[in-house]
Amino acid sequence: MATDGAIGVFDSGIGGLTVVRSLMDRLPFEDIVYFGDTARVPYGIKSVATIRRFAGEIARFLMQRDVKMLIVACNTMAAVADDVVRECAGEVPVIDVIDAGARAAVAGSRSRRVGVIGTPTTINSNAYAERIHALDRGVRVYSAACPLFVPLVEEGWLDHPVARMTAREYLKPVLAEEVDTLVLGCTHYPLLKPLLQRVVGRRVGLVDSATTTAELAADELRRQGLAREAGKPAHRFYVTDVPLRFEAIGERFLGRSLGTVEKVDWAVD
Amino acid sequence: MATDGAIGVFDSGIGGLTVVRSLMDRLPFEDIVYFGDTARVPYGIKSVATIRRFAGEIARFLMQRDVKMLIVACNTMAAVADDVVRECAGEVPVIDVIDAGARAAVAGSRSRRVGVIGTPTTINSNAYAERIHALDRGVRVYSAACPLFVPLVEEGWLDHPVARMTAREYLKPVLAEEVDTLVLGCTHYPLLKPLLQRVVGRRVGLVDSATTTAELAADELRRQGLAREAGKPAHRFYVTDVPLRFEAIGERFLGRSLGTVEKVDWAVD
Repeated sequence: MATDGAIGVFDSGIGGLTVVRSLMDRLPFEDIVYFGDTARVPYGIKSVATIRRFAGEIARFLMQRDVKMLIVACNTMAAVADDVVRECAGEVPVIDVIDAGARAAVAGSRSRRVGVIGTPTTINSNAYAERIHALDRGVRVYSAACPLFVPLVEEGWLDHPVARMTAREYLKPVLAEEVDTLVLGCTHYPLLKPLLQRVVGRRVGLVDSATTTAELAADELRRQGLAREAGKPAHRFYVTDVPLRFEAIGERFLGRSLGTVEKVDWAVD
Repeated sequence: MATDGAIGVFDSGIGGLTVVRSLMDRLPFEDIVYFGDTARVPYGIKSVATIRRFAGEIARFLMQRDVKMLIVACNTMAAVADDVVRECAGEVPVIDVIDAGARAAVAGSRSRRVGVIGTPTTINSNAYAERIHALDRGVRVYSAACPLFVPLVEEGWLDHPVARMTAREYLKPVLAEEVDTLVLGCTHYPLLKPLLQRVVGRRVGLVDSATTTAELAADELRRQGLAREAGKPAHRFYVTDVPLRFEAIGERFLGRSLGTVEKVDWAVD
């Protein structure tokens, strides 16, 4: 391994592009290979055995593309298939969104009362609470599943009265616990950040797992002497299907033009 | 073929259970075999080639189970794979939700101004407008995609202020066209029927494709001498994955207990 490998980032769909966006901002010289399993999204409703199999397939695909780091930019895979990915990765460092979010929450909370929001699968997996407690057993974690946030983001209703009303309803029980930190435990949620900040108020800090993952990746690359300090980066995007509105939604997530997207066929169904 | 075959009903997920519910009410003596491709749902975001392949696989699976009629209870498959299903079915009659909805809309509209709502894929396919125009070229069709309705139904917010506000927003442009009939072009939408009726007002008739499909099935069975007039029916349910909250959501759709659900493995990914 050397500084010239790419960072491999993967997700069940396009949500992980929010992580890519943060990586591009934080590590502007690094090559990035993104894999989004758009043909089989959403993973959240699939069985654990199926998700673990898919995670292994994707990790192996990226390992064949000269990566120096793997980033699991999918809360569902990070929750139930972390060990599968690490086994495929061998010596290559692996970072995941849950780990990054848990670390940032523990570091950022003064009251040691932390809220976590995510999809039903992520929340039911209890993965954030477990990782937070592995870092600090004294932190109280209050969770809420927010199943409508992903469709609201994909609809583009980022600052819509419906999104505000939905957020107020979902967050009410968590806010009642007087948390001072709220982890956005889903890669779609960074797009709702301004709205969510208004709903939770200024006294609650939002932990956005896209920026915290990019931060952790930067630390890890530097620590292992793998960071690239100059050069024009290459960004490649692989998907398993090119769905309706893919480009429009993808570019909203990435905050810029997607460039070339390659469709791979080995996982079409 | 004889009166003792089952009615085969299929959908990409569990939405088609609203059609099964209407069939149980309308045809209480008929055996029903349901197939829900829960491992690969939602189809709406997949490519047409993929959807056609899946539709063929499912139709062949049901044809091996002694069916006397096939019902495509999935708007996405009905829109893009109707011919594939009919080819697999051979002599067995095929009915689909789009055909049933289009016929009921044309029969029910006096002003000949019809609204159609559905998922983005169904609306973009233009299938309802085409089928309505094949029956009556003079009917004006006004469509609106309602991507948040499916997640709202699955969240169980059937009479929630968020659902009301969302419905008002989605329906505003269609209602402005002074339609007298609104086709609910998605198998999830019958659960929103009371709320939608309040939003559109009493002067607009709702065409619910679950009940219209059951009606069309009953007519067709009678016409072909295939109807069963007595006996205790058997209801079988096949799915390709058993996702989180499957039973709770399934029973809400079906309006009764699901009974035995069998998981088949040939389409797990």
